[in-house]
Amino acid sequence: MQEKDKLNILRHSRHDWMNVVQVIKGNLQLDRKDRVYDILNEVTRRAEHEAKLSDLNTPDLAYKLITFNWQWQKFHLDIEMIGKPIDCARHEMCWLKFFDQFFEKLTEQSDSMTDPNLLVSFHLQETPYIEFDFQGGIQDMKNMQEWLAEWKVSSSCYVENIVANEQELVFVLNKK
Amino acid sequence: MQEKDKLNILRHSRHDWMNVVQVIKGNLQLDRKDRVYDILNEVTRRAEHEAKLSDLNTPDLAYKLITFNWQWQKFHLDIEMIGKPIDCARHEMCWLKFFDQFFEKLTEQSDSMTDPNLLVSFHLQETPYIEFDFQGGIQDMKNMQEWLAEWKVSSSCYVENIVANEQELVFVLNKK
Repeated sequence: MQEKDKLNILRHSRHDWMNVVQVIKGNLQLDRKDRVYDILNEVTRRAEHEAKLSDLNTPDLAYKLITFNWQWQKFHLDIEMIGKPIDCARHEMCWLKFFDQFFEKLTEQSDSMTDPNLLVSFHLQETPYIEFDFQGGIQDMKNMQEWLAEWKVSSSCYVENIVANEQELVFVLNKK
Repeated sequence: MQEKDKLNILRHSRHDWMNVVQVIKGNLQLDRKDRVYDILNEVTRRAEHEAKLSDLNTPDLAYKLITFNWQWQKFHLDIEMIGKPIDCARHEMCWLKFFDQFFEKLTEQSDSMTDPNLLVSFHLQETPYIEFDFQGGIQDMKNMQEWLAEWKVSSSCYVENIVANEQELVFVLNKK
């Protein structure tokens, strides 16, 4: 990799942290010590989940998810890892394909007026699965459900347990 | 660049920031609010200098300096930028050559028992120059001075204004 690209990664990371520093300073000035603790605990939690995600041996997926919020997006992404990191290299190709297409679909369909948030939870066990919990409006839910239905019959990973209503979309991505 | 390398950069950066978060938490618990402000101001200052260094159009040198302390080193490096970022691309080759050789020399010669620190100040003006301020013991100062003397006659950048004694080594790297 070119040093310019490396500097760019550091620039984004620095920018994220400077935002945190500003929020901490603001709360300190207002003497809201409890709020400062909350912020510190939240960034620690996030850092721990990112570190675990980086340890799944799925570098393309990990980098994509960790840096997702660096650009302006129609929804905010939050990730969490449940369980200890395991080698998920053999799942990466199917996961990547699903994430790419789902992010594209959600960008097209999510209603940014509802401050949408997608929580992605990796359940790290012998056969790992991923839970998607989207909170926010979806413009054409019928279209979204038709798209998800196609993934119910995919050969290597498939969607199940879909819960969909006006303000949320929850499902699981499992492996055969 | 491979995504693995990118994740590695993020891992180092995250590790640095988690250290800062721990120190802030510790000081909050001891109710040392002033110390927390000092830490926040110091990381902000460092981030600002790193951002400026990244804007000199000298990516190889910038990446080398910003990431220098990521590995264990015999001395600590601190950088500061005096003035506004300017395009220093034409100086990069000579600077890189000097930094590589000086860091090697200093690693060989610095006495790690003295908690050595090297402050590198870039003076950003029409003809930029770099000030080196090393505080710490040097094992064989005669050898170090002989090495510096060779740089007094270099063709594209040269060393001048050397001040050397038992506990410090200060000089300027200028351009012809």
